[in-house]
Amino acid sequence: MFEVEVKYRVPSHDRIKDNLKSLNAKFLEHTEETDIYFNSPVRDFAKTDEALRVRVYGDGTVVLTYKGPRIGSVGKTREELSVTVNDLDSLLEILRRLGFKEVARVVKRRDIYNYENFTIYMDTVEGLGSFVEVETMVNNKELINKATEEVLQLGDRMGLRRDWIERRTYLELVLEKQGVNKP
Amino acid sequence: MFEVEVKYRVPSHDRIKDNLKSLNAKFLEHTEETDIYFNSPVRDFAKTDEALRVRVYGDGTVVLTYKGPRIGSVGKTREELSVTVNDLDSLLEILRRLGFKEVARVVKRRDIYNYENFTIYMDTVEGLGSFVEVETMVNNKELINKATEEVLQLGDRMGLRRDWIERRTYLELVLEKQGVNKP
Repeated sequence: MFEVEVKYRVPSHDRIKDNLKSLNAKFLEHTEETDIYFNSPVRDFAKTDEALRVRVYGDGTVVLTYKGPRIGSVGKTREELSVTVNDLDSLLEILRRLGFKEVARVVKRRDIYNYENFTIYMDTVEGLGSFVEVETMVNNKELINKATEEVLQLGDRMGLRRDWIERRTYLELVLEKQGVNKP
Repeated sequence: MFEVEVKYRVPSHDRIKDNLKSLNAKFLEHTEETDIYFNSPVRDFAKTDEALRVRVYGDGTVVLTYKGPRIGSVGKTREELSVTVNDLDSLLEILRRLGFKEVARVVKRRDIYNYENFTIYMDTVEGLGSFVEVETMVNNKELINKATEEVLQLGDRMGLRRDWIERRTYLELVLEKQGVNKP
């Protein structure tokens, strides 16, 4: 499965939420997520545009995710592989023993909405501010461009300006803030 | 936690099982396990005496385990870190993407018994034959020698000859059979 996703940096969530209500989008849930990112001992994921992430949800659920390089031009489409894991501390220790190094933590609160085939995330990221992500899934690379266009059109209807699009990941934004710039 | 374990290669399980019954050891369960071993892209686990294993139980449970180097002289005591994972295929694919290479599969049927603080595994390993493992857990390195002696004494009472002790892992034995010898 490929995640087709466009992210916008927004001044505030208020007006976007009103627009979502007008579209009759359905509020799904509020989550709090802490993302712990690791770098590989064999290649620099910042250069290969990969990511290895341990996500901890507010309810304690732990998910390990590998993300392949972004393959879209506008959005941040990637191939994702995830597993749910039963023990955070053991997982972190296994990753360290295998040579993976923790590079950053991203802490965010999200309100999640559903509209047709789309998932909309209203994100507040610690130290970074407010964002909106509009996402859909496709099971075939050839559908990515069409899906990206649909995501952008929904963004327009939600009042998301195209010059607000932020192609960098939260991880990259956090690392830039820490003064660790991509080469 | 440290696993203190001694493994014996046995001609047959029959007499050992009779001895276990005389000791009033408790039969716990029968399991079937497929172990998939991976090597690291940064160091050769055969040389560093580490192991990364994905174990699949007969009921579909998937456990990822990192094992540190053996630290006892007689037994095969190691530090172990394990997590249960919800999706075998995704886990295998994540490991491959991270650069880990599958080196061997070990398929075994085990009858598991409990006696006092000990766990006894009567193993039949595909292509290798019959084995018995006697195991206990300690939470402190300083207790390893004492626990190893207790394990050996229980082995004596079960009729396990000390010259049957097999210090190599099933993985090593499978690799040797495949003609891939340790340097």
